[in-house]
Amino acid sequence: MARCYNFCAGPATLPQAVLETARDELVDYQNSGMSIMESSHRGKQYAAVHEEAEANIRELMGVSDDYAVLFLQGGASTQFAYIPINLLGEGQTADYTNSGAWAAKAIKEAKLIGNVNIAADCGAEIPTRVPSQEELQLTDGGAYLHITSNETISGAQWKTYPTVDAPLVADMSSDILSRPVDVNQFGLIYAGLQKNLGPSGAALVIIRKELAERVPASTPSMFKYATHIAQGSMFNTPPCFSIYILNLVTRWIKAQGAQTIFDQNVSKAATLYGAIDADDFYSGTAVTDCRSDMNVTWRLPSEALEAEFIKQAEAQGFKGLKGHRSVGGIRASIYNAFPAEGVDALVAFMKDFGLKNG
Amino acid sequence: MARCYNFCAGPATLPQAVLETARDELVDYQNSGMSIMESSHRGKQYAAVHEEAEANIRELMGVSDDYAVLFLQGGASTQFAYIPINLLGEGQTADYTNSGAWAAKAIKEAKLIGNVNIAADCGAEIPTRVPSQEELQLTDGGAYLHITSNETISGAQWKTYPTVDAPLVADMSSDILSRPVDVNQFGLIYAGLQKNLGPSGAALVIIRKELAERVPASTPSMFKYATHIAQGSMFNTPPCFSIYILNLVTRWIKAQGAQTIFDQNVSKAATLYGAIDADDFYSGTAVTDCRSDMNVTWRLPSEALEAEFIKQAEAQGFKGLKGHRSVGGIRASIYNAFPAEGVDALVAFMKDFGLKNG
Repeated sequence: MARCYNFCAGPATLPQAVLETARDELVDYQNSGMSIMESSHRGKQYAAVHEEAEANIRELMGVSDDYAVLFLQGGASTQFAYIPINLLGEGQTADYTNSGAWAAKAIKEAKLIGNVNIAADCGAEIPTRVPSQEELQLTDGGAYLHITSNETISGAQWKTYPTVDAPLVADMSSDILSRPVDVNQFGLIYAGLQKNLGPSGAALVIIRKELAERVPASTPSMFKYATHIAQGSMFNTPPCFSIYILNLVTRWIKAQGAQTIFDQNVSKAATLYGAIDADDFYSGTAVTDCRSDMNVTWRLPSEALEAEFIKQAEAQGFKGLKGHRSVGGIRASIYNAFPAEGVDALVAFMKDFGLKNG
Repeated sequence: MARCYNFCAGPATLPQAVLETARDELVDYQNSGMSIMESSHRGKQYAAVHEEAEANIRELMGVSDDYAVLFLQGGASTQFAYIPINLLGEGQTADYTNSGAWAAKAIKEAKLIGNVNIAADCGAEIPTRVPSQEELQLTDGGAYLHITSNETISGAQWKTYPTVDAPLVADMSSDILSRPVDVNQFGLIYAGLQKNLGPSGAALVIIRKELAERVPASTPSMFKYATHIAQGSMFNTPPCFSIYILNLVTRWIKAQGAQTIFDQNVSKAATLYGAIDADDFYSGTAVTDCRSDMNVTWRLPSEALEAEFIKQAEAQGFKGLKGHRSVGGIRASIYNAFPAEGVDALVAFMKDFGLKNG
């Protein structure tokens, strides 16, 4: 079978060139006589990968030395616990915005650990959206404000990040490195790799170093950012292969040019939303000014038509278009590595399907 | 360069056939038009991998339905915290044996969480060893007894597991599936994949299901075994590629026959210890009846000779023989996938080196 168009929400499509390099190097990594998977994490070969991956993230995102760049295990979902464990002191309150399923999960875990104030709640609204700066009800002296930069399931995205006094903490799992971001605006940014950055099995955490000093001494070493900062993400054996692929992906972004990728993301999303808005057959799920450039969500006139749409699309090599089981509908995840021609091909299919069924 | 003999302690050598399969399938997994790394963890393709990996572990280790088989992130080091969080109730005491560096790390983390009794301490002894059943000073009504089945750094291994009333918990990171084990003797077994089972990035946990019910309700979801049991290790996106390689490794073990692998491990270790004991030039680090079949450790008459030994060995394609930086000396890690001919070749090199330098 030819390479399909993979619209999966994550794990998601990777650059074909990255996969081909990984394949070519898999059995014998750079004439070392072993795979990178078999290479000691303390050895020169893997150390070079690890250091380059960090350097590339720093360069691509403009991360200053005030911040640590960490590669941790457990996905973004583990960060839901690590963040309040590390940043939410006894007696303090953390502000969280609820913008949908992922924000709600972060809130649920934080409440198990400390005091949480819901600064804004539009998590159950349809059409879906994220809160505006104006509606935030923030805690005086709050420990931090947590937002979900992009809701992967509902397809709603913060277009301008809120300006607040407390450290801003963002789950960027589904839009990290997809657009320009001023890291200095944040106290902590985290993201699972498996959407824009690589395969599953690791999370990227970018944390202002001084924030890591708040953690209680009695916290298990693994749960402390300070541990991972001190050890350069080598407190224990890292997920080497996931970081190796991350490194190849960051090289690929550098080779394309980050701004080129960002521009393509805007263009791909505009093309797809254009097709959705072209007539009444398709209707976008998110409020227009909160529409995600990464996860484009829409409905058809009936669930029966949606099922037929997904079935016919699949037969033509468009995979992973079924909306999340909790919300239904259609979702096209078009991350950095998703090719523009795949969006064009989907739009052509949508026009044809709309004409035949509208 | 030809394939080297990789004696690294972990990440470690993998079966060449597994690497070749992974390479061949890497870009297009079974005509799906995508890599297994790009495949949704909720889709049929990855689900089949995940289920087969669990079934193979159950079959190879004889795991009954009273136990859950989990694939978790964070390595064995994360289990150092999860175990007391889940199993060590308020006011209870857990017994730990100290047999070396890894046991000490488990103890350090457990002490942050609850009451710990050191049931036996030979962690600082040289020659290195593990405790005997007779010297255990157990707590009446202790929550569990934790042992480190094999000390990767010192090369000391439990040959017969202790019989105790409390649940027995074992870190088997460096000898899991290397020899016959009666799982029913244990409450919980855990192991990082990156020695006998696959690449880094995941840990295998085998837990008697009823033990998962002790955890306080206020524990973050990610830290509860009950969460992962309920979700089949899919509470969040699993480390899919690591589990995919684990599955290939378990298939390889099944194809060889587990007993064949176990017998080879005994034979490989006996060959290497034979060379160490052949004359006084080499001296084993561990007490004879505690010698590890996985991590064979020994010394030469001087550190200068050890450095020369490692240098000459490296030049001949024997990699990773340097002992852990905390203890020095020589260490040959000869896990399941390490070929017998590599041990024979090393023994020949040792004889030659001993003759020239002894």
